[in-house]
Amino acid sequence: MTSPSPRALALRDALDGRWKDIRQEFRERVRPEWVLGEPGESIEAQRERVTKQIGIICDEGLGRVGFPEAYGGTYDYGASCVLFEMQGYGDLSLQVKAGVQFGLFGGAVARLGTARHHEKYLEDIMTGKILGSFAMTEIGHGSNVQHIETTATYDPATDELVIDSPTPSATKTYIGNAARDARLAVVFAQLRSAEGDFGVHAILVPVRDENGATMPGVTIEDNGAKGGLPGVDNGTFSFDEVRVPREMLLDKYGGIDENGRYVSPIDNENRRFFTMLGTLVRGRVCVGGGAGAAARKALLIALRYGQKRRQFQAPGDAQEIVILDYLAHQRKLLPRLATSYALALAQNAITETLQELHGVEHPEGELPKEAGREMETRVAGLKAITTWHAVDTIQAAREACGGAGYIAENQLTQMRADVDVFATFEGDNTVLLQLVAKGLLTEFKEMFGDLAMAELASLVTKQVAEGLVERTTGRAGLQRLRDIAKGRDDESAMDDAGWQLSMFEQRADHALETVGKRLRKANKDNAFELFNNAQDHVLFAARAHIDRCVLEDAQEAHAEMPDGPAKDLLGRVLSLYALSSIEKDKAWFLEHGRLNTTRSRQVTAAINDLCGELRGDVDDLVDGLGIPEQLITAPIATGERTTSNA
Amino acid sequence: MTSPSPRALALRDALDGRWKDIRQEFRERVRPEWVLGEPGESIEAQRERVTKQIGIICDEGLGRVGFPEAYGGTYDYGASCVLFEMQGYGDLSLQVKAGVQFGLFGGAVARLGTARHHEKYLEDIMTGKILGSFAMTEIGHGSNVQHIETTATYDPATDELVIDSPTPSATKTYIGNAARDARLAVVFAQLRSAEGDFGVHAILVPVRDENGATMPGVTIEDNGAKGGLPGVDNGTFSFDEVRVPREMLLDKYGGIDENGRYVSPIDNENRRFFTMLGTLVRGRVCVGGGAGAAARKALLIALRYGQKRRQFQAPGDAQEIVILDYLAHQRKLLPRLATSYALALAQNAITETLQELHGVEHPEGELPKEAGREMETRVAGLKAITTWHAVDTIQAAREACGGAGYIAENQLTQMRADVDVFATFEGDNTVLLQLVAKGLLTEFKEMFGDLAMAELASLVTKQVAEGLVERTTGRAGLQRLRDIAKGRDDESAMDDAGWQLSMFEQRADHALETVGKRLRKANKDNAFELFNNAQDHVLFAARAHIDRCVLEDAQEAHAEMPDGPAKDLLGRVLSLYALSSIEKDKAWFLEHGRLNTTRSRQVTAAINDLCGELRGDVDDLVDGLGIPEQLITAPIATGERTTSNA
Repeated sequence: MTSPSPRALALRDALDGRWKDIRQEFRERVRPEWVLGEPGESIEAQRERVTKQIGIICDEGLGRVGFPEAYGGTYDYGASCVLFEMQGYGDLSLQVKAGVQFGLFGGAVARLGTARHHEKYLEDIMTGKILGSFAMTEIGHGSNVQHIETTATYDPATDELVIDSPTPSATKTYIGNAARDARLAVVFAQLRSAEGDFGVHAILVPVRDENGATMPGVTIEDNGAKGGLPGVDNGTFSFDEVRVPREMLLDKYGGIDENGRYVSPIDNENRRFFTMLGTLVRGRVCVGGGAGAAARKALLIALRYGQKRRQFQAPGDAQEIVILDYLAHQRKLLPRLATSYALALAQNAITETLQELHGVEHPEGELPKEAGREMETRVAGLKAITTWHAVDTIQAAREACGGAGYIAENQLTQMRADVDVFATFEGDNTVLLQLVAKGLLTEFKEMFGDLAMAELASLVTKQVAEGLVERTTGRAGLQRLRDIAKGRDDESAMDDAGWQLSMFEQRADHALETVGKRLRKANKDNAFELFNNAQDHVLFAARAHIDRCVLEDAQEAHAEMPDGPAKDLLGRVLSLYALSSIEKDKAWFLEHGRLNTTRSRQVTAAINDLCGELRGDVDDLVDGLGIPEQLITAPIATGERTTSNA
Repeated sequence: MTSPSPRALALRDALDGRWKDIRQEFRERVRPEWVLGEPGESIEAQRERVTKQIGIICDEGLGRVGFPEAYGGTYDYGASCVLFEMQGYGDLSLQVKAGVQFGLFGGAVARLGTARHHEKYLEDIMTGKILGSFAMTEIGHGSNVQHIETTATYDPATDELVIDSPTPSATKTYIGNAARDARLAVVFAQLRSAEGDFGVHAILVPVRDENGATMPGVTIEDNGAKGGLPGVDNGTFSFDEVRVPREMLLDKYGGIDENGRYVSPIDNENRRFFTMLGTLVRGRVCVGGGAGAAARKALLIALRYGQKRRQFQAPGDAQEIVILDYLAHQRKLLPRLATSYALALAQNAITETLQELHGVEHPEGELPKEAGREMETRVAGLKAITTWHAVDTIQAAREACGGAGYIAENQLTQMRADVDVFATFEGDNTVLLQLVAKGLLTEFKEMFGDLAMAELASLVTKQVAEGLVERTTGRAGLQRLRDIAKGRDDESAMDDAGWQLSMFEQRADHALETVGKRLRKANKDNAFELFNNAQDHVLFAARAHIDRCVLEDAQEAHAEMPDGPAKDLLGRVLSLYALSSIEKDKAWFLEHGRLNTTRSRQVTAAINDLCGELRGDVDDLVDGLGIPEQLITAPIATGERTTSNA
């Protein structure tokens, strides 16, 4: 394997971003046996292997990343997202199990708990001495968390909480770590006492003893075989009046004091619920990041294979043609590679925002709420866009490798199967895009909500007002691009970044304005129907907004690069991303007079040209991704590189 | 489970088509244990189970379907495709393994062999006494079969053929039945003798003895874990000067006589090759049919779940909303259901054509060549379109069921993983669409070819001529629809079937004409570049042609239905299919002045309206698919039906 060129290394630098150090540390230290699996192992063997690898991760100190330094944590909060992302280059079962342990379970203890929980549990969590679960989803309620049925009832007689699953649909399900390993679970339940009901809270509940025996009153079942993630032991919990001490309530945002009284810094129950959920937003940041990494690895494999594999002779040519020289093959892989670059840069940006908002202590009462809501909106959208991109890209990569792509040792199929569920866990993507729309359509100060179509309907119905449409755009850093593009819409070159950005802006703005107008007609009687009829429009507006954010983030990162060949190359890559996105929505641009038919055809021609151009840069573009080479074991992607004969 | 309504049964009749009998027999007789697997079994257990099920199929006499009656076969040739399709409602590993045994292996013996092979082997093949492989693909050559490297050299001294793999890339790979069960293999190899080289031929080669021991000179390896089809024992064969008697050559289209002379009814080597391949076209018909069935089963599961699952309350409503009442959910599933209906009707049509051309003996010299080439073109395209549809649809169905869709017992994930490879086996879909384009762009009498971009380039370069564009359309049966639509393009109602058809025709015709013009500029020096630059255009033209064929087939089947509520319903379903296809290519229609912006928006509005309308017909639409209820074991799709509260 040849070493990356200076241009590739400069690209990698741009992609590494702020957390270059932990990326580099991971790249240098990670061993295949830490993070890879064997294709074809039985479910039991995969679970055992992954549990063992969690131990290795802990031994290597990686379990401490992002936890408070006061309790032995290392690096900062954002770094934990980046570490999760880097684990996306390994086996995704391990990535998800580590995410459950250190992110969801550990994160809930850290973020929803208080000092007594931190002192008692964090060290054991970071070292993997106690494995745990994050028990939120129920059979009856996945997306609609606010309506879960599990109850936690305070019993003043014993100063305990009684955890109960009143119905079969209250059973917690798809819970990672549940079927095999968890000893403790963070259980989300409706908290109530003689005083009243206080909404959803999280309680630490022991589910197995030290010997692994299920605790009395707890029923655990195995979710069994799944579409992927075979190494993650998903299962169900149900509770039959299980008693835990009052102190097991993770009470940062609401607890019961020694007098049995409910106390909370946030009076409004709805707001409290969404504040708690908002605290956990890192999970969504991570899922998007991990999916993006998996997509990049799949592209590396398919592109290396596409540069070696030959099939069919050109007339008069003795040697067969390298398949990546075919336009159709370039079209399959290069726009997806360009999108992967753009999404990786957007992922860096959202991670930085998370670090700024959640990674440092804000003085009480100064928690930047609007910025927090804006971030949550963006996280939701980016997670949806990136995970769908990953599902689609890994599929395309698999097909691009033909039969070889279907053989497990070539590392594509397990990844494809695993990443599938990323589109529906940590928020169903369709529901998340509605959350984006809701974020855009309602004023931030009034917005507290994971959302539903229906809920969105009632909410906006109540809030119809002037200034409904609020956005987060028009970044100063990109003003220069805008100025350059201004006033020559129909003359701009296709590769003009300013023109591309203005197309993204026009799509996002117009979609949002028109959906806002449409929804403003809602009243109590027609709300559901009106909203439901506009649902595709709502989803389009959400997607257009996120696409615009992605391009802005990517162009900003590009603008910050030092001048040179890597910057030039990334500029062309982002141009391919932008044009591909415009091409997908060509009909919209035509319908709305933003493209005439001549320019519309030019978009396609420009994409084809760019594919041909970037074909020659594929080695650098792949090396620039910075994927640890030792994790690429696919025989079709290793060995000598060959070059095109085109 | 309630019984299907009369309307659903009438729909089913329309979908059952000509082979209603074997469909009905299968529906009534099939037991889950014949054709279903257990999720989460190990690869070894799955292989064992599937091999056992092959035995059951044989015991039930289903192995005989489509073989010549003279040797104990039953039903007709077309029925074997329909049986394969029905097996798509069961486990796809079994379907594929049965396809390898009875279709590819058995079919090659039946179609490429002569009486001595039939007498000696067919009974054992139909009863599963001898399991076999179809060894065509090599490591070096998948799509480009004509360039495989395995050799079969005639040795006159011993009157034997010597089968040899001269290089590692000559190794046969991904061969079904190879890793575990095959005793005989149909091996494709370059036939040669002292006289010269005769191109690719098929030879029966024993690969294991009766005790399962590998034959001398044969090396067998296991392809190991794959992305799906765990019950199929794919593996590799390589041959080190393996000797078989001359009689093992399947010599219908070319053989060696007792004097050691090569004899063939077809002089031209190229034509002989493509005639042999053409004989095997049933494999592609079957793969498309099987994928279509899997997609329909996935839709059944997702639609039943979507009708039961509730999430989020509408304002003022006590009960949560049934998720299929959301427009976004309808949009995910109903256009795909409509497409599934259309493709199923097109599949019936191609199966009838296959039966007419390959299912009866044609007097020597009267083999309808042009019709044969036309059919092959259509089979290639339909296979590509249907398998991609299946991959996409099963994925959408999985996502529509959220976390529950990811649990294996709900029958979606294994099917999704299995069907994945349908897009690249029996012809890579992209290569197949090029074959379609080639079929359309060259005169039928000159067309002999599986194709490559490059080969296409050289071929068309040679054949540039007037009358280049030849098509197979303008069916008499649909003339009435055309007449009605004529002359009022901009006024036709969106649901006017004639207008829809004319849109499909315009898209297909224009794309083909323009691609023809573009390619006509090719000469020896610029051919590859010119073709490569037009590759996306070529693929679009191919797809547009196949879409048109599908709509024509579906509209014809619809026209033949007796008047009544089922016909009305299917009409609306086909309208949804047609509009969805038009919507996908909206940009094209706008760019080419076939839609103005007002009508373009109306297409989307009409789709939304139709989704809302058909939502109420979902029970009948699902029942109309005629899927054996006993094969639906997914807990989320069984049990009581509920209805919408919308």
